[in-house]
Amino acid sequence: MDAPPADLQKLRASIDNIDAALIYLLSERFKCTKQVGLLKARHAMPPSDPSREQEQIDRLRALANDAQLDPDFAEKFLGFVIKEVIQHHKSASQQTAGP
Amino acid sequence: MDAPPADLQKLRASIDNIDAALIYLLSERFKCTKQVGLLKARHAMPPSDPSREQEQIDRLRALANDAQLDPDFAEKFLGFVIKEVIQHHKSASQQTAGP
Repeated sequence: MDAPPADLQKLRASIDNIDAALIYLLSERFKCTKQVGLLKARHAMPPSDPSREQEQIDRLRALANDAQLDPDFAEKFLGFVIKEVIQHHKSASQQTAGP
Repeated sequence: MDAPPADLQKLRASIDNIDAALIYLLSERFKCTKQVGLLKARHAMPPSDPSREQEQIDRLRALANDAQLDPDFAEKFLGFVIKEVIQHHKSASQQTAGP
């Protein structure tokens, strides 16, 4: 196949910059949720919190509308991240309750 | 259940700020990939590009290591986003090739 057109290379460079920013932000987010997990385990709170999650969904859908992002994708994205977080919380809870 | 401890509220406020930043960045990313999709459709390039994707995976795993984020999660995240992008590209391709 031909080399990608110059426009494509420019767009890919921007995508790569955005991806780096996303990775560093996700890392900060997981630092926060790790602390949340430890707090929850210490206070014997359940790993998931449906009312908090519903608030997050509603808020992210509104932000997505403002950002001209598909709100359904924003909700799917949050679900994807929360699924990972809850896994981490469960592990933290098991470690706290462990021998 | 008791009100969440003050520490939990602070952490959640930070998570909410990070999530807003993620949503706005994802929106910018999709603006780029939408243009990529149009370019690819115009040049009759296939929606997915395995060698580009492998480069992205390798790069994001290295960035994740630097950011102290689980590289497996970074790879899963990229896969999640690319899956959405390829859906968009397929739709764009069908619209270009359409009647």
